[in-house]
Amino acid sequence: MESLNILNKKCPIRDFSAVSAGKQVFLPKLRNMSGATERGVISIAHLEKFKEIVGAQFVLADEENLQHYGHDETEHLQYYPEVVLKPGDTQEISAIMQYCNTHCIPVTPRGAGTGLSGGALPTQGGVLLSTERLNKIIEIDERNLQVTTEPGVITEVLQNAVKEKGLFYPPDPSSKGSCFIGGNIAENSGGPKAVKYGVVKDYVLNLELVLPSGEVIWTGANVLKNSTGYNLTQLLVGSEGTLGIVTKIVLRLIPHPKYDLLMLVPFASLENASAAVSAIFRAGFVPSALELVEIDALKIVSAMVDSTAVPVNDSIEAHLIIEVDGNNMDVLMGEMEAIAELLTQFEAGEVFFADDAQQKAELWKLRRRAAEAVKASGYTIEEDTVVPRAELPALIRGVKQLGKQYGFKAVCYGHAGDGNLHIRINHPTIKNSYGNPEMTEALKALFKLVHSLGGTISGEHGIGLIQKPYMQTMFGEAAIELMRNIKRAFDPNNILNPGKIFDLKN
Amino acid sequence: MESLNILNKKCPIRDFSAVSAGKQVFLPKLRNMSGATERGVISIAHLEKFKEIVGAQFVLADEENLQHYGHDETEHLQYYPEVVLKPGDTQEISAIMQYCNTHCIPVTPRGAGTGLSGGALPTQGGVLLSTERLNKIIEIDERNLQVTTEPGVITEVLQNAVKEKGLFYPPDPSSKGSCFIGGNIAENSGGPKAVKYGVVKDYVLNLELVLPSGEVIWTGANVLKNSTGYNLTQLLVGSEGTLGIVTKIVLRLIPHPKYDLLMLVPFASLENASAAVSAIFRAGFVPSALELVEIDALKIVSAMVDSTAVPVNDSIEAHLIIEVDGNNMDVLMGEMEAIAELLTQFEAGEVFFADDAQQKAELWKLRRRAAEAVKASGYTIEEDTVVPRAELPALIRGVKQLGKQYGFKAVCYGHAGDGNLHIRINHPTIKNSYGNPEMTEALKALFKLVHSLGGTISGEHGIGLIQKPYMQTMFGEAAIELMRNIKRAFDPNNILNPGKIFDLKN
Repeated sequence: MESLNILNKKCPIRDFSAVSAGKQVFLPKLRNMSGATERGVISIAHLEKFKEIVGAQFVLADEENLQHYGHDETEHLQYYPEVVLKPGDTQEISAIMQYCNTHCIPVTPRGAGTGLSGGALPTQGGVLLSTERLNKIIEIDERNLQVTTEPGVITEVLQNAVKEKGLFYPPDPSSKGSCFIGGNIAENSGGPKAVKYGVVKDYVLNLELVLPSGEVIWTGANVLKNSTGYNLTQLLVGSEGTLGIVTKIVLRLIPHPKYDLLMLVPFASLENASAAVSAIFRAGFVPSALELVEIDALKIVSAMVDSTAVPVNDSIEAHLIIEVDGNNMDVLMGEMEAIAELLTQFEAGEVFFADDAQQKAELWKLRRRAAEAVKASGYTIEEDTVVPRAELPALIRGVKQLGKQYGFKAVCYGHAGDGNLHIRINHPTIKNSYGNPEMTEALKALFKLVHSLGGTISGEHGIGLIQKPYMQTMFGEAAIELMRNIKRAFDPNNILNPGKIFDLKN
Repeated sequence: MESLNILNKKCPIRDFSAVSAGKQVFLPKLRNMSGATERGVISIAHLEKFKEIVGAQFVLADEENLQHYGHDETEHLQYYPEVVLKPGDTQEISAIMQYCNTHCIPVTPRGAGTGLSGGALPTQGGVLLSTERLNKIIEIDERNLQVTTEPGVITEVLQNAVKEKGLFYPPDPSSKGSCFIGGNIAENSGGPKAVKYGVVKDYVLNLELVLPSGEVIWTGANVLKNSTGYNLTQLLVGSEGTLGIVTKIVLRLIPHPKYDLLMLVPFASLENASAAVSAIFRAGFVPSALELVEIDALKIVSAMVDSTAVPVNDSIEAHLIIEVDGNNMDVLMGEMEAIAELLTQFEAGEVFFADDAQQKAELWKLRRRAAEAVKASGYTIEEDTVVPRAELPALIRGVKQLGKQYGFKAVCYGHAGDGNLHIRINHPTIKNSYGNPEMTEALKALFKLVHSLGGTISGEHGIGLIQKPYMQTMFGEAAIELMRNIKRAFDPNNILNPGKIFDLKN
């Protein structure tokens, strides 16, 4: 694939490899300068223009804010923006983009900052554009089972609002209580229900999008089927804020299932637990959630939230959390019993049925807070591998082997029903994978294994900054150049979230 | 949106608007010439090269073949290619593309030729590339519930092969007995099951793709969740053979439901029938099919297939065909009864339950052969509108009104559960919409209505050639220019299926 050599490109590609390869930050001192900062691009004149567009109170350049908006949940990384803008609507975002495109100013969009791949880190300084003020649910259309929302709405808030109407929006990452629906679209998030109900891309019908030029388009229509030109909607989902800024979202909804049942199943062997996963599907069951949690993760999170809900003993290596849902309780009971019966073939221990809403909530809390707890206890590096689900045992064996080889501890948990395994790594000295040659080598070995199993390096967290060095494990140069050409097609001046997913060349 | 002005583009954009605006064809006389044909581009030397690549018996340039491969099922349109090539594998397709890209030769890929928007019509002459020899199902992976197939496999053949293993690939257009899975991917096909199970895009995991340059890539991975760079897989689905040629396809499968029930419900009023559709979903039911057939269509198809399965009388304006499926017969019976009860609110007539496999097959035959029958009886123009399902009554009222205004008869049938309404038009004198100013005006009025209802101009047939004049009804110039830029990103020389979806400018 040839690079598109574009005649009408205005801005040079800035090379921040020296900055972004390390973990160092730069703090611009705008207030002392009349021109651009030494390493940045934003001048006092630019700031004045931004104040005109969004109002002075929504232009932040103080150190505390630059620090706050300079990190997300990715490892321990920190990159200061030069200014934080909080626009209130599509028109303001359009004006910002048009101005920045004309002046070659990098713009990094940000939702709630809960990302795990560094997609919202402003590694090239410039503008950090927060969508937090676009926080309205515009319309719940009960006639057509759709919702139109702004991107800054918290996922759980949206879920609860539609649930009140008897409707269901299934995708909910572990961070659903704080993450934004816009960020979920940027990363094509999943969550535990994806195994039955699909991921974010399966619910997005139409997007209002501000292009890097400032132009505003709708990507599709509010319909369930669409073969009208290229699927811009699907291209945008998972594009990590590099192609446009999503300002309105139309999602399809489904009727909320009336009942669900939840059980926890202990296994003496982690490998048996993972092998059981694909057997459940081969037997014709489609659980609404099928999660795997390794015992070390469960111990850590139980201690953090001070829960004794799940007894742990030395004969257990892992648990499966299995949920079924539907509208007929007898059918669900029958399914649960049949699944439990099937699992005896994999030497499952005694099944624990969650009896009531409180027990279910307790179990889900343990699962949802696993990432946070495990990170806090030293497992700072998280991977988001995904393989065809029958290959999970091979992946888990490989992870343990690599841990021995490279001197780290790893705990695994995740959406096993999808083959999506989160691997948390605790290395005695290396706390950030990004920029570390030894950990980079270990992760390359991991991702080569994942690729050989038919899998990929990210199921729901995205590539962002920290997985960029591993794109070549999955894709040859032709495919990556194609992605670069798509980026050029949307953003010839490379001003929107530059340096993410892949590096552009001049 | 600015056009990408690409420095490294090699071929001039050829302007065939004079050819493609009319319905005229041109027949090259290659065998008499040593150079390029008057209007074509292919010389004897090119033919020799093609014979070297695919073998002489798979290079066809006789009039009968050029005629056969010069039309599909779209209206009565005919465009002759200059040569038909039938490569046998990815490598041969790669060699063809590389050669044609170097020599600026247009290549139009073709599946089974069952398309309804003219996507496979070789409007600019050049090479017609048939995928019919890539007809192997490569692997049914029962461990992971996936199938890997070549594009030239007939959809129903694929469905039956996986059904033998207890697995289900739901999307099946009416032409499932003859269309290719590759064509289904090009158009993002749907079919009656889409209402519960989704369309083609919801099943495609990974694609092997030959780029216009001849390079071969995989677009993704064989996994259920993927956030690894831009979603090339989803961008390719529905791109109508304009971005690359799909040579291998990995599809996800689901367990086949054990039972289904089918009923036919007559309505005295077409509008009531269409209004009932959204009520079913609002009540929490998700049928596995929900089709609407207007009485005129049913009369025509019943006569064609000589069926008396469905009694028709003058008090009926339309029928709904409703299917539910699942693994518990009692639950399904309960659902059917509850739906039938609900429909009494819409003045439904006496419900006809299909008692056995034969009755079900008879009903489905009537529905599936409706398009063919109605076309043969003079309704040559077919539209593929889709709206949010609660807007169906407004759409149907509008269609009837436009028929009066523009002097045509219209019958409606289609996947009402999705809001996807096929509108067949019988005009006393106009048999092709394409290139006809009067019908173009009528269709613009129709599509403006569709757009105002939140809908779009194609749900599953694609834009291809004949819907190209209406893209502006749905998209502003910025969105269309973005699509053109994506085309340039994949195919800077515009050799792959040129002149489809939109026109490129130099």
